[in-house]
Amino acid sequence: MFQKLLIANRGEIAVRIIRACREMGIKTVAVYSQADADALHTQLADESICIGKAEAKDSYLNMERILSATIASGADAIHPGFGFLSENSKFAALCEKCNIAFIGPSARTIEETGNKSEARNAMVRAGVPVIPGTKEPIFTAEAGRKFADEIGYPVMIKAALGGGGKGMRVVQNSTDFEKNFQNAQREAENGFGDNSMYIEKYIEHPKHIEFQILADNEGNTIHLGERDCSVQRRHQKMIEESPCTALDEDLREQMGAMAVRAAKAVGYRNAGTVEFLLDSHRQFYFMEINTRIQVEHGVTELVTGIDLVKEQIRIAAGEKLGLRQSDIHLTGHAMEVRINAENPDKNFAPCPGTIQELHIPGGNGVRIDTAVYPGYIIPPYYDSMIMKVMVYDKDRESALKKMRSTLGEVIIEGVTTNLDFQYEILKNKEFESGAVHTDFIEKNFEETA
Amino acid sequence: MFQKLLIANRGEIAVRIIRACREMGIKTVAVYSQADADALHTQLADESICIGKAEAKDSYLNMERILSATIASGADAIHPGFGFLSENSKFAALCEKCNIAFIGPSARTIEETGNKSEARNAMVRAGVPVIPGTKEPIFTAEAGRKFADEIGYPVMIKAALGGGGKGMRVVQNSTDFEKNFQNAQREAENGFGDNSMYIEKYIEHPKHIEFQILADNEGNTIHLGERDCSVQRRHQKMIEESPCTALDEDLREQMGAMAVRAAKAVGYRNAGTVEFLLDSHRQFYFMEINTRIQVEHGVTELVTGIDLVKEQIRIAAGEKLGLRQSDIHLTGHAMEVRINAENPDKNFAPCPGTIQELHIPGGNGVRIDTAVYPGYIIPPYYDSMIMKVMVYDKDRESALKKMRSTLGEVIIEGVTTNLDFQYEILKNKEFESGAVHTDFIEKNFEETA
Repeated sequence: MFQKLLIANRGEIAVRIIRACREMGIKTVAVYSQADADALHTQLADESICIGKAEAKDSYLNMERILSATIASGADAIHPGFGFLSENSKFAALCEKCNIAFIGPSARTIEETGNKSEARNAMVRAGVPVIPGTKEPIFTAEAGRKFADEIGYPVMIKAALGGGGKGMRVVQNSTDFEKNFQNAQREAENGFGDNSMYIEKYIEHPKHIEFQILADNEGNTIHLGERDCSVQRRHQKMIEESPCTALDEDLREQMGAMAVRAAKAVGYRNAGTVEFLLDSHRQFYFMEINTRIQVEHGVTELVTGIDLVKEQIRIAAGEKLGLRQSDIHLTGHAMEVRINAENPDKNFAPCPGTIQELHIPGGNGVRIDTAVYPGYIIPPYYDSMIMKVMVYDKDRESALKKMRSTLGEVIIEGVTTNLDFQYEILKNKEFESGAVHTDFIEKNFEETA
Repeated sequence: MFQKLLIANRGEIAVRIIRACREMGIKTVAVYSQADADALHTQLADESICIGKAEAKDSYLNMERILSATIASGADAIHPGFGFLSENSKFAALCEKCNIAFIGPSARTIEETGNKSEARNAMVRAGVPVIPGTKEPIFTAEAGRKFADEIGYPVMIKAALGGGGKGMRVVQNSTDFEKNFQNAQREAENGFGDNSMYIEKYIEHPKHIEFQILADNEGNTIHLGERDCSVQRRHQKMIEESPCTALDEDLREQMGAMAVRAAKAVGYRNAGTVEFLLDSHRQFYFMEINTRIQVEHGVTELVTGIDLVKEQIRIAAGEKLGLRQSDIHLTGHAMEVRINAENPDKNFAPCPGTIQELHIPGGNGVRIDTAVYPGYIIPPYYDSMIMKVMVYDKDRESALKKMRSTLGEVIIEGVTTNLDFQYEILKNKEFESGAVHTDFIEKNFEETA
């Protein structure tokens, strides 16, 4: 097992990883930017190293500084969390080169799955159902429109190296194509430094269903059931839950088997997520593989009782997977609401600032993952998510009631958040029914969203 | 189901009950003393009624004021929590008379089980093993010593109406008897207004094992497994866990069946706890039935997935028990550490005061039940327990590691607490082994304890 692990991240996921390490007896090294000197992860780790200025490119995205900190501190592993360098194959390769365990799949797998065209081709070869779309990257609006006209509208334009909703556009007709393509491509260039785009048939009113995967270094691969992440605003997930009401045991088994097949097709190692779109006819289509721990991993932990971060670390340390598919049972129902410091009335603009007052609920079946505290100053440089409120109960109805009650108890003063907006979603009848599609927010909360 | 429920308590258990009600759609009424105007339970309830001065006798122990508040607010049920009036049969009888549902067993059962001699006789009749002891209450040291000399030392002197360690003494020989009896009797008089005492054989190095019971109004009775509460200081529990390492499935089944038999012997209704002493020869002896929800009920909730407070409310509302014995499975391992505002270096004297800084951990498998917040003033009038830190993991070793990590993260500044003392216990090798008896604290931490 590792002696010392460096966390190349910040916020609640850094705290989450530090806690897992403490429980495993692994020493932790936090890295932090000048804006995060008082951050919780900086305080909780055994050692903390300042790696640069506030801007992520000078700190949490600066590979050289992070590797220097790793070597200087004597850490033998890096956990990248999510975001930042977590899906950067170059960084994973650098770690491999420096003989530092990168907690995630190989650089090769990250590269293959990160490139949507490559990933898609691998799935086609493996017999995993995919959405009709371009086989090769597209670089010009003209070539893109030609293809879109062929497969028919609506279509989705995606950045080949994208993620998190950036560089994505839905286009309803040929006329709107060019403008949307150019905007998406510009986002792709700015966000990922790459302008290769990908176009596919847009599945209307789908559910976003993702399967959690674990694979050890011998290739033993299992899935830990699904998460329903259909509540999204502009491709940003807002509420996630497990299990999904639209899946029966039969469909879960089918999709789970395909998720395992998808993972095996790219030689997947460590924890990962296979995302599918599920349409109203029980047809599902591979979307992408996320080669990191996800924000919403906790809901899977709550229904399976398995600690995904510890599993990640064990696998990266070379341990054989201690679980078989038959050991995995989804019990009860878990739900997560993401609390962001943002203003729903101002197009969800981030609202950094100082948390003046804070009341975080606790009690039976409530899990809170956060790194904020009273007096904490939310810096303007990073993601606006400040808290994950999770609940667990015997069934969806009970979990939903618990989430309403729990969210109703949260007090965050000093910064504007999406708390009330999330609460409105929880009261929505369509959400209550469980039959929510990815267009739910747009359809029901258009004025504010 | 009840429309509105009054909580005749304060602190974290009042908050716990309010949360259960919110999830069940039941309106809540808090009562509070003048010292608790800013308390969390006062703020969280739908309505809050001040019932008197800070001293408990003028507020939380004042039956008339609590009943007036109930009637005035239109509440149809009272949850008494633990402590205060929770095991007061007169109060339960008054509720019955006023047609208010008292959430607990009948006044008759509270009376019978509250009187240790009566309870013991009922167990003897039902064939539940008891510790050799007096059959009738003892009122004088002389009569007590005569009996103790007969059954042999060590003996335990107990207040017949006692609980929570008050009015209890262990006596090693005849010479020490009189002084100890008189001290215990004085505590009994002051604490419970009753001087009837009870003497029994003292079982050396036992484990304190209690079984959680649920019984509906038709008499359907099940147990929810055990809690090991052997870590005690002067009969005050400090750490509780479930399951107990000393029980195998066979012994659990035997003791569980006896717990159910004990409950049935007194016509038990609602949630209750049957306490046993378990000696090193796998012999167990009935101690008492606690006719309330216990401080440590959460560890049972964590390993069974059953919400005991909700079950209490459902049963009191006349619902049939929705669980059979075969539905109950203990999964994983749960542990609770009680954090008290007290000074271990000053004989654990209570340390009321203002909480200046507070960091409460969260994350995977951590449950915190508390009613304190930064700036909260802990009043000097009530129990010193301010927080219950609970963890849940796949086995005891993992749970213990998680508890160490979690407790290590807690920050409470402004008042002295037993946090470091509890942490020392968690590091103790004997505790780590699980083979701890009720004399563990006295034996290992004598200088400080």
